[in-house]
Amino acid sequence: MSHSKSIITTTEIIVKFSDCDALQMVWHGNYIKYFEDGREDFGRKHTLGYWDVYKQSGLAVPLIHVDCDYKKFVGLGEIITVESTYIETPAAKIIFEYKIFNEKKELVCTGKTIQVFVDAVTKELLITVPPFYQAWKQKHL
Amino acid sequence: MSHSKSIITTTEIIVKFSDCDALQMVWHGNYIKYFEDGREDFGRKHTLGYWDVYKQSGLAVPLIHVDCDYKKFVGLGEIITVESTYIETPAAKIIFEYKIFNEKKELVCTGKTIQVFVDAVTKELLITVPPFYQAWKQKHL
Amino acid sequence: MSHSKSIITTTEIIVKFSDCDALQMVWHGNYIKYFEDGREDFGRKHTLGYWDVYKQSGLAVPLIHVDCDYKKFVGLGEIITVESTYIETPAAKIIFEYKIFNEKKELVCTGKTIQVFVDAVTKELLITVPPFYQAWKQKHL
Amino acid sequence: MSHSKSIITTTEIIVKFSDCDALQMVWHGNYIKYFEDGREDFGRKHTLGYWDVYKQSGLAVPLIHVDCDYKKFVGLGEIITVESTYIETPAAKIIFEYKIFNEKKELVCTGKTIQVFVDAVTKELLITVPPFYQAWKQKHL
Repeated sequence: MSHSKSIITTTEIIVKFSDCDALQMVWHGNYIKYFEDGREDFGRKHTLGYWDVYKQSGLAVPLIHVDCDYKKFVGLGEIITVESTYIETPAAKIIFEYKIFNEKKELVCTGKTIQVFVDAVTKELLITVPPFYQAWKQKHL
Repeated sequence: MSHSKSIITTTEIIVKFSDCDALQMVWHGNYIKYFEDGREDFGRKHTLGYWDVYKQSGLAVPLIHVDCDYKKFVGLGEIITVESTYIETPAAKIIFEYKIFNEKKELVCTGKTIQVFVDAVTKELLITVPPFYQAWKQKHL
Repeated sequence: MSHSKSIITTTEIIVKFSDCDALQMVWHGNYIKYFEDGREDFGRKHTLGYWDVYKQSGLAVPLIHVDCDYKKFVGLGEIITVESTYIETPAAKIIFEYKIFNEKKELVCTGKTIQVFVDAVTKELLITVPPFYQAWKQKHL
Repeated sequence: MSHSKSIITTTEIIVKFSDCDALQMVWHGNYIKYFEDGREDFGRKHTLGYWDVYKQSGLAVPLIHVDCDYKKFVGLGEIITVESTYIETPAAKIIFEYKIFNEKKELVCTGKTIQVFVDAVTKELLITVPPFYQAWKQKHL
């Protein structure tokens, strides 16, 4: 009886000058990039990165959904931590939830992404869980 | 009896090489930029751009929420149309909904943003509708 | 007797909020994107865009050089004009020089890019002028 | 007799999915961002970052020049090293030269930036070396 089918990765990021906008705060669109940074860091640590998926299966994993709720501003030079939580689902999807914290451990934003599997060449959508992902789940969850 | 307290702006965008990712399709994060392009085009046409707001009120209008649901891939050189719909709300917020279409008029993605008003210097949140925005609404809605 | 083996394209760009940095001026790296915008606009007008080249020849045209000299700041909402000048060369290269002007026709920056031809799949460099480019030159210069 | 008025910082960067373009290689404009990453890392290590300068002097340090020569492609997931070399000059400028290497220690690109000092508010250019920078040089060179 497991209620814990999730895996969490934390990733530190230094906010760059070019991440900030005219308000001298991180431009809102860049949090979507930070989510990707967290997700790719998860991928490297748990062999579920874009390349891992592609090499094993010929599949790409485009997003079908992203959302982000902003709680606090983050400025130049701050070090933020992206907490990426893999959320188990029986569907042919990869779901992550994100929390970003500043150095004071204050919650900066929350978000979520949903990815699906498509053939990297034809771009056709998979509606059943691909074998490599089934195997990955069995190994990691 | 008005059920039409919305204003719609459409904005054409040519997808650039640097907008595309390794799948040769627009990188998902760039749709957030397209939403901003649509919103700023609305702002230019209806005097509600970042600068308009700032000059009239000393306020900035950061996002507290964005979401995007992706329906179709868009590739290099395609011309897309962002349909930005201003959604009336009594709250001290600016709400937009977006639909992006490709040249075949197929729906590419939908999304939403919510902005609030903060003092551009202190970054303090306004909880009541600022006078300039009340005036803007009376004029435009 | 031609000393004019150049073609000039001008492209208008509205400076976006997300183009600006914490100084509220265009971030220097974005001028490289404006050069690409100008180059791609040239490409659309004279069938020398990335896709045109690829479809006709299976080649890609990566940069081997870029430089930019910044003369004046440009801020949010300004409308700039990129003047992209195609520079004839006998080498297997595509050379452009750029001038960017603000609305007052003041010179904002100058720059240059040099592109070469590589096989899009093997990434192997072409050292002789490919036939499609020779044909393009004869038609356009 | 000193020929060594330079300081070198090395900075590791993991190439991200969103850094790559439709050729599945790092988009050329992103090297300008990598140069900034290297420069800001230098700044953090040697108190010459954007904020350090601003807080000590009220000055900003915009670029007046950048160039980059591309030698080799870099792809998704590669780890690159930016070698940022501070170049001493008697002028009121900050000059850096960059070399980027891949994991095989192959030279990927070279580049250079020149920054000047301007008043962060008036944007007026300083033509003499500001005192804080003179002090910085005496301490670090």
